[in-house]
Amino acid sequence: MHIYDLPTPAVVIDVAALHKNIATMADIHPGRRLRPHVKAHKCTGLAAEQQGVGHRSFTCATPREILGMIAAEVGDDFLLANETLDPLRLAALAAAQDDALITVAIDSEETLMAADKAGIRNVMIDVNVGLPRCGCPLSMAGRLADAARVRGINVRGVMGYEGHLMMVTDRDEKRTRVQQAMALLAEAHEDVGGDIVSAGGTGTYDMFSGTTVNEVQAGSYALMDSHYGQLDSPFVQAMWVVGTVISVQEKWSVADVGLKSLSLDHGDPKIEKHSVWFCSDEHTTFSPLEGEPRPKINDRVFVTPSHIDPTMAMHDIAYVANQFGEIIAEWPIDLRGW
Amino acid sequence: MHIYDLPTPAVVIDVAALHKNIATMADIHPGRRLRPHVKAHKCTGLAAEQQGVGHRSFTCATPREILGMIAAEVGDDFLLANETLDPLRLAALAAAQDDALITVAIDSEETLMAADKAGIRNVMIDVNVGLPRCGCPLSMAGRLADAARVRGINVRGVMGYEGHLMMVTDRDEKRTRVQQAMALLAEAHEDVGGDIVSAGGTGTYDMFSGTTVNEVQAGSYALMDSHYGQLDSPFVQAMWVVGTVISVQEKWSVADVGLKSLSLDHGDPKIEKHSVWFCSDEHTTFSPLEGEPRPKINDRVFVTPSHIDPTMAMHDIAYVANQFGEIIAEWPIDLRGW
Repeated sequence: MHIYDLPTPAVVIDVAALHKNIATMADIHPGRRLRPHVKAHKCTGLAAEQQGVGHRSFTCATPREILGMIAAEVGDDFLLANETLDPLRLAALAAAQDDALITVAIDSEETLMAADKAGIRNVMIDVNVGLPRCGCPLSMAGRLADAARVRGINVRGVMGYEGHLMMVTDRDEKRTRVQQAMALLAEAHEDVGGDIVSAGGTGTYDMFSGTTVNEVQAGSYALMDSHYGQLDSPFVQAMWVVGTVISVQEKWSVADVGLKSLSLDHGDPKIEKHSVWFCSDEHTTFSPLEGEPRPKINDRVFVTPSHIDPTMAMHDIAYVANQFGEIIAEWPIDLRGW
Repeated sequence: MHIYDLPTPAVVIDVAALHKNIATMADIHPGRRLRPHVKAHKCTGLAAEQQGVGHRSFTCATPREILGMIAAEVGDDFLLANETLDPLRLAALAAAQDDALITVAIDSEETLMAADKAGIRNVMIDVNVGLPRCGCPLSMAGRLADAARVRGINVRGVMGYEGHLMMVTDRDEKRTRVQQAMALLAEAHEDVGGDIVSAGGTGTYDMFSGTTVNEVQAGSYALMDSHYGQLDSPFVQAMWVVGTVISVQEKWSVADVGLKSLSLDHGDPKIEKHSVWFCSDEHTTFSPLEGEPRPKINDRVFVTPSHIDPTMAMHDIAYVANQFGEIIAEWPIDLRGW
């Protein structure tokens, strides 16, 4: 099967670009130095490629992602880098603890108690390092670790996500601010103990020299999107939502790729050599840049999403293509849901 | 089961509000005057409620939606109000033509030929009435209808979607502009023939008096969203993505509802009596308005999405609740995909 035979809209991954991205990151953060975030692709087939270059510890955003990774036998050490109070989901994680090392992030007494009640054996203290989201204040981290240990729970260390710094474009400014955020995390680590200091993302993966961070949680680097593509980085676009041109008018054309097949939260998608006018539920209206030919009905278009994570979560299957456009694998996007 | 027992994030429908919206629209456009658009909910359980008040013809955006409606035995007359060139999907529709009346929109020679080749028996001419998307120019409509009839295909009439006018807030201006758009459609109808003149949406459902439009394609009215909620209309919010407060800090709180459980393409979601700061993949950061109490960990929050259609498409199940918050039904969101 060829890209041109696929039912559209379809997620297509360029296997060479994917392998390049995975190899580039593994050179910089080999083995357990990288804890790839599976929320970016929700696909055990892709995670297996990350394991193939030596990563065996993974970051997950949902219990479902951890349980799906264990079922697919990819990875052996999973961090739920997100708070949950759901007793059934925590119990399901606890029941899987003989199959893999599972660690749950906590940032409050309540999340600690929920983990304890479910029988979770390992936690990580999630510390706020500047992004207004989850993570306890620095002053609370040590107490929370002590409270966990009193309950017989192992505290593996600290994590802090500096998500507010991902898109700082001046690299010197970014480095300074990441180092300041990581100084907070190091201070929390002194209070908390444990082996792990976990942080980072695709926007900051190369900003940790001189910090105590010993694992990086990047995810988007493998497939990329137009948002992260704005940054100066060695990672290349490796995924597109491929659509079919279904209507051609004098001034615009329409592809069958819309809001239900790509996420617009980071802005409109991009189509090379074309201008995107707007997206509707099932459509992207676009036109060629000056000097470019008008598309023809039934042409394929390669649409680059602005945000990879929620876009992948909209699809059932990722089609993996070689340089000839042949489909060499179909990877179920099997970690969707919560 | 109660709303407070649901795993979150979860789509919850207020059955009384849903029934009120469905009854209100059926009063204005009874029976086949309304062709409810199932793309707004992708849920045969909800479509069955629309059938319950007398609608048996439905609008669909994807072949999958039509085939799912037929499988669920809801409705008897389906319009694919969207162009497709996919031979396999058109063949699947053609194979279902003995089970229901299926009509496919066409706006070009190519879409006509694809429908003909697959054995589609009924088409509708999709005419551009001002929105830069699908729909042929007025000058082409009659020729396309003639070409269909030459091939032995029945032409049921015309459709034109005035999507660019949905959010015009001045009602007099909106009425004038809708009438202008529908004058184009009436002109196309003279050239095309057939019984049906189909148009409209939740933003224009009451703008067709004095036009030749004889069926309205509204969909969002049943559940609503914060975007359509800005308009002066009798329809009330009937759906929320219910989340759990997983983290509470001094200045903000975090719920487990994010970009993977609601669509941001029409703006940030809303939480009553609170200010929404921003959404991440799995989180909404928010804070109470002045004078309102701070949320507590494990509280439930009711998040109103800005755009209902892509939000529903992110979920497996819609939980239907009564006025006591009890879950009285679980409707699979069974029409997802293409």
